[in-house]
Amino acid sequence: MTEKNLQILLRARPEGIVGVDHFEAVETPPPAPRPGEALLRNRYLSLDPYMRGRMNARKSYAAPVEIGAPMVGQTVAQVVDDPTGTFQPGDWVLGGYGWQRFSVVPVVALRKLDPKEAPLTTALGVLGMPGTTAWVGVTEMSPPRPGETYVVTAASGAVGAVAGQIAKRMGARVVGIAGGPAKCAYVMEELGFDACVDHRSPDFAEWLAATCPDGIDGYFENVGGTIQKIAWPLMNDFARLAFCGAIAEYQDDQPAPGPNLGQINRKRLSLRGFIVSDHPRAFAEWRRIGGTWLKQGGLRYREDIVQGLEHAPKAFMGLLDGKNFGKLIIEVT
Amino acid sequence: MTEKNLQILLRARPEGIVGVDHFEAVETPPPAPRPGEALLRNRYLSLDPYMRGRMNARKSYAAPVEIGAPMVGQTVAQVVDDPTGTFQPGDWVLGGYGWQRFSVVPVVALRKLDPKEAPLTTALGVLGMPGTTAWVGVTEMSPPRPGETYVVTAASGAVGAVAGQIAKRMGARVVGIAGGPAKCAYVMEELGFDACVDHRSPDFAEWLAATCPDGIDGYFENVGGTIQKIAWPLMNDFARLAFCGAIAEYQDDQPAPGPNLGQINRKRLSLRGFIVSDHPRAFAEWRRIGGTWLKQGGLRYREDIVQGLEHAPKAFMGLLDGKNFGKLIIEVT
Repeated sequence: MTEKNLQILLRARPEGIVGVDHFEAVETPPPAPRPGEALLRNRYLSLDPYMRGRMNARKSYAAPVEIGAPMVGQTVAQVVDDPTGTFQPGDWVLGGYGWQRFSVVPVVALRKLDPKEAPLTTALGVLGMPGTTAWVGVTEMSPPRPGETYVVTAASGAVGAVAGQIAKRMGARVVGIAGGPAKCAYVMEELGFDACVDHRSPDFAEWLAATCPDGIDGYFENVGGTIQKIAWPLMNDFARLAFCGAIAEYQDDQPAPGPNLGQINRKRLSLRGFIVSDHPRAFAEWRRIGGTWLKQGGLRYREDIVQGLEHAPKAFMGLLDGKNFGKLIIEVT
Repeated sequence: MTEKNLQILLRARPEGIVGVDHFEAVETPPPAPRPGEALLRNRYLSLDPYMRGRMNARKSYAAPVEIGAPMVGQTVAQVVDDPTGTFQPGDWVLGGYGWQRFSVVPVVALRKLDPKEAPLTTALGVLGMPGTTAWVGVTEMSPPRPGETYVVTAASGAVGAVAGQIAKRMGARVVGIAGGPAKCAYVMEELGFDACVDHRSPDFAEWLAATCPDGIDGYFENVGGTIQKIAWPLMNDFARLAFCGAIAEYQDDQPAPGPNLGQINRKRLSLRGFIVSDHPRAFAEWRRIGGTWLKQGGLRYREDIVQGLEHAPKAFMGLLDGKNFGKLIIEVT
């Protein structure tokens, strides 16, 4: 094989905002599979907000990326060579990893994909990790009851878009929060949310309150920051809040103070943080349920596909700034 | 009947710290029962931190006390006159109310007490609302598993003392937080907690961290404020926090900011607020279980009984300042 392995490495840990200088592109020879491993050619790389945390040295729920190592990330890939004989060359699989053209992966960590079953990229988005995150976050962490008001932050994003559609299936009145009129229109018209409020609007606080005249019963937290501060007083007694992420805070040097927690007691709130990887059984569960909805045309999604691995750093910087529109995926050329 | 009805009324709403001037003692003729009601002579009045919230006009989980109305509170009382014939004069009952010598109460709201079954005052403390609060808060809101570290704030108080003993029964290593060496000694030696840390000590933060070398898995929140700030970073992944109260904040004019909520997601925390009155079935449940332990000598408690209803305001002010030692009860003379 003459093709080089283009890799995007972590060059330096950002203090605050990520820039292109924190990454470094290198070309290396493709790696060779060790016993039990297959060599993969990555075709689609998922870019997700959690990757910002992996750039820090600080302890979190997963180990940081080492300086000089490729950035982490899940890929849809094609098998180049599988000495174990489990897969054939050209087979599509989920489970490649890294911001790189090639990866070697234990075959037991791979799941074969059937391009006729669902579009390949959905394994990284609506039917993959982000969709499963929405499934766990809504149904387990903050289950709405019919007639309740359920608010989804980052509503046009990979997770939020699915979370709102699940809450809608559960009978809730679903209110999205998104950045800008185009995203809000998409959330209402395409995703079918009952309403969507633009957090970039100068009258966001009044708009959100007016859109939730009966208060908030369920809240899918993806953003933190100012939006959290504004939504917090609107919580009803017994409201359930799923803490999935805080993208607006990922680039903060120091964590900003949060709301006074007295309301947790007075309003009998339930706040539950979760990481989807703690719920391994949910992945197949969601593929079955979400996959059925998808085939029936009852689950909408949007992908923002950027061509070329070399553009991954800039695309990722845009993701942290809300510039993507739909699930951000790199097509690895 | 010639005896007057001494009543302690709410005279003015406090802004911040409660003082004696916010109360007013009056003597009125005893009230007359309406159909379905009995006239009671209150003998023991429970003083509890939640009463501070009722002095505010601000909406909370219960209606505020009106200016000029008697302060709310539960009492153990003797029946003076029951025209319905349900109770006999002299019968002991739980369910009188108010900071007052006499009250008239629908007989359906009364529960007969047997002084031979358990000391009468325990119906206001260890076997009553505070004990039940501990039961719900530990077993439902923040259940520890054997070997885990469970931290109880206000550990020598009416609720905390029971919470720690329940967590101990569940197999946890129980660490109390209390104010001053005498309370800490009591928490360890009498209540049987594994350790107790004095939050008035200048090295409280280091002491707490050293006492929880494996972090905190369960947390019973009764205090808020500085103690909450210091304990928050010690939470382990998957820690469960029961939000019962925040006595250190009840006199604050403005709610102080809380911790950044990003840890809820990263550490997969569960924060659950609760009010015991939302769990009516738990009262009989806890009376049965806690009552058995009490008879067996396996449930310890301490009461701080103040003689004379006229001293209720000062006793209540002391309660908010941590001056009581054990369940605060007024003996109504």
